[in-house]
Amino acid sequence: MSEIPYKIYLDESEMPKAWYNLRADMKNKPAPLLNPGTHQPMTAAELGGVFCDELVQQELNDTDPFIEIPQEIRNFYKMYRPSPLVRAYCLEKKLNTPAKIYYKFEGNNTSGSHKLNSAIAQAYYAKKQGLKGVTTETGAGQWGTALSMACAYFDLDCKVFMVKVSYEQKPFRREVMRTYGASVTPSPSMETEIGKKILAEHPGTTGSLGCAISEAVEVAVGSEGYRYVLGSVLNQVLLHQSVIGLESKAALDKYGVKPDMIIGCAGGGSNLGGLIAPFMGEKLRGEADYRIIAVEPASCPSFTRGKFAYDFCDTGMVCPLAKMYTLGSGFIPAPNHAGGLRYHGMSSTLSQLYHDGYMEAVSVPQTAVFEAAEQFARTEGILPAPESSHAIKVAIDEAKKCAETGEEKTILFGLTGTGYFDMVAYEKFHDGKMDDYIPTDEELAKYAATLPKM
Amino acid sequence: MSEIPYKIYLDESEMPKAWYNLRADMKNKPAPLLNPGTHQPMTAAELGGVFCDELVQQELNDTDPFIEIPQEIRNFYKMYRPSPLVRAYCLEKKLNTPAKIYYKFEGNNTSGSHKLNSAIAQAYYAKKQGLKGVTTETGAGQWGTALSMACAYFDLDCKVFMVKVSYEQKPFRREVMRTYGASVTPSPSMETEIGKKILAEHPGTTGSLGCAISEAVEVAVGSEGYRYVLGSVLNQVLLHQSVIGLESKAALDKYGVKPDMIIGCAGGGSNLGGLIAPFMGEKLRGEADYRIIAVEPASCPSFTRGKFAYDFCDTGMVCPLAKMYTLGSGFIPAPNHAGGLRYHGMSSTLSQLYHDGYMEAVSVPQTAVFEAAEQFARTEGILPAPESSHAIKVAIDEAKKCAETGEEKTILFGLTGTGYFDMVAYEKFHDGKMDDYIPTDEELAKYAATLPKM
Repeated sequence: MSEIPYKIYLDESEMPKAWYNLRADMKNKPAPLLNPGTHQPMTAAELGGVFCDELVQQELNDTDPFIEIPQEIRNFYKMYRPSPLVRAYCLEKKLNTPAKIYYKFEGNNTSGSHKLNSAIAQAYYAKKQGLKGVTTETGAGQWGTALSMACAYFDLDCKVFMVKVSYEQKPFRREVMRTYGASVTPSPSMETEIGKKILAEHPGTTGSLGCAISEAVEVAVGSEGYRYVLGSVLNQVLLHQSVIGLESKAALDKYGVKPDMIIGCAGGGSNLGGLIAPFMGEKLRGEADYRIIAVEPASCPSFTRGKFAYDFCDTGMVCPLAKMYTLGSGFIPAPNHAGGLRYHGMSSTLSQLYHDGYMEAVSVPQTAVFEAAEQFARTEGILPAPESSHAIKVAIDEAKKCAETGEEKTILFGLTGTGYFDMVAYEKFHDGKMDDYIPTDEELAKYAATLPKM
Repeated sequence: MSEIPYKIYLDESEMPKAWYNLRADMKNKPAPLLNPGTHQPMTAAELGGVFCDELVQQELNDTDPFIEIPQEIRNFYKMYRPSPLVRAYCLEKKLNTPAKIYYKFEGNNTSGSHKLNSAIAQAYYAKKQGLKGVTTETGAGQWGTALSMACAYFDLDCKVFMVKVSYEQKPFRREVMRTYGASVTPSPSMETEIGKKILAEHPGTTGSLGCAISEAVEVAVGSEGYRYVLGSVLNQVLLHQSVIGLESKAALDKYGVKPDMIIGCAGGGSNLGGLIAPFMGEKLRGEADYRIIAVEPASCPSFTRGKFAYDFCDTGMVCPLAKMYTLGSGFIPAPNHAGGLRYHGMSSTLSQLYHDGYMEAVSVPQTAVFEAAEQFARTEGILPAPESSHAIKVAIDEAKKCAETGEEKTILFGLTGTGYFDMVAYEKFHDGKMDDYIPTDEELAKYAATLPKM
């Protein structure tokens, strides 16, 4: 075995040719999406009104373990993939730990995160179906940027509803999307019925992801030649994101390295689900064992303090119901700069796996996350996104435990993206103005009471 | 010869172990720096008051073709290098050109540009000399960010004077530097004598790079245990940046590719000098021929409309005199968002090579640069820095010429960085508010008249 380099890059010929569909290996399959009116499983025909046809097939497919990546998507992947698997030699030295730390870095593309992996897939299938364009929502902006890039590549129209608070706080994110030709509307807006309704009821609202989803779906369903696309939570998104885990595993396998634990941040679950996919597959098939740890913000603790129940995916209650760990679709997270982790729910697939004991979850307060982020930036060079820094925080904690016990554990974590557009949050941290708000049990109970009666 | 991948990465073992010192192969050496008082060549002892000792040796060394890269710097390089040499398949297809386009992408690090290549070297030698810290100036912010990262790595104090207009327009850049522990002062400031003088004479000034240099030098010279470091123009910086060209050439050599032309943007010359170094070396030694093209903004045309003469490197006229293509040290470029290309002068080494006919230069107006930038972003994914986009513009023009003539030329250009912190400029472009100011002959003559009498 040769010495392990700082960065392991696969050759293009070693890049995955198929996505891995984790659900195929699950004994307890994730529960199906339900029609919000009838409470019956959504049919392909029903879903086809909202999503592209081939994506509907992927959404419903829980039997095929591998789904081929079309050549055009693989070509696009080659523009920014394989992403590096980095050995954090400098961080290990700084922590004086015997632990071996690896991270899969997904931030080296203009969208700044892993979101592009699914955006290009969804845009491809929309183009293949002959659509004019797609609609979506974006919170922190990574997903909207990724979709804009993908749509520019395939010459598709792209309408993005951006949570108003982000639209105002992140004008540069908006401008990047414009560079790629997308139209960006602050949500809630007067362009949709649901937007008008929400504005009438809450005139001063700065919006939420759930609300922006409702608007994007309404426009997609009501416009000829448009469909809606979503950047997380859905099975199809986890499928596309499996490229993260497949590359990570192939890179580690080249050097005969087997991680003891795999750590990822969890908002809707797209990064975590992708990173762990092939490892979890081995675990489900009884071929190997790994500690798998989801990290979520203490301000939005779906896994650690939510209910495992059917709930709406959106605030407007127009989307299908998903069975998942949820805080209630009315839950509006406290101002929390880890924008991508502010979703009230969680991927059904990951929820089922967590429920069945295949993974752990932990929640961490924001200030500690930024302390870890800054330490990481200064030692490993990369300025991490606040979302990613949740995983960094727990990886550092685990490495410190190894320093105490002397155990040489191998840690793999997902570095989902960069923080270049999150400097307002870093500034608050530097100025000591960051809050560590954690919802009370009473607050959570109030929102949990809004779960639909089944 | 195997098929050329989208991105050519060298293995760590193939990374350069020595920098290439272009001056060693020049028959007409670049003219020495002169003491501004005596007009005699600066001695090592004189330069040692401003710069680190080992960097002074590098500055004066025009005989050794290779200078070993210390192991600690090579380790740091491994954190973000080798940078990819990208085959622009998508751009070629979009332009429907038989030209083969390659670009060396230096933007995949947190500083967002190639500047880190020299920052880490200069910080290393400062640390080795036992200094407490370094001072510098920054315009657009890439250099300041790079130096902050390098100083954080070696635990050195870092004082950055940031051109006031950038300090105010780019608060996020400032915040990144703070994340890496640097102190950032808007220039001109009341912290230096020269700053006070400039503010007294021009109370409303928004600063300039030349002015910030004067302040940083004053603080370095007046503080125990500090030296000044500079991110461009100097011979030592071109030496460190040769890693760009060495990697590019090694990557092309692996596939038996020889470029017909090499294109780089030119502000102070650090990127261009680094990119072309080994190719120019072959040209100087008569081993190969290449067209080498420097691209500068029409608003700050040092090569194409400047004088080849001794001039001050800074506005305050405290720095040594350099013989270079210059617009006059009093030249203040029009508001021009390609911040890194706003310097009145140009590297002495490149100036001599240009003067001796080894390279061409062309100037391009800003709006055309942003049109090229947007086209590039939409086809190749990467959102380029305005500076880099000058090279993109000319590379696209040359590729279009090939589409007309049918010539299969091989084009290599330098993509020095990303534009994530330049969205204000992109916004102006999108809103049609970008100006294409070009200085008149009368204006240039006025500043040229300020050149020191020798």
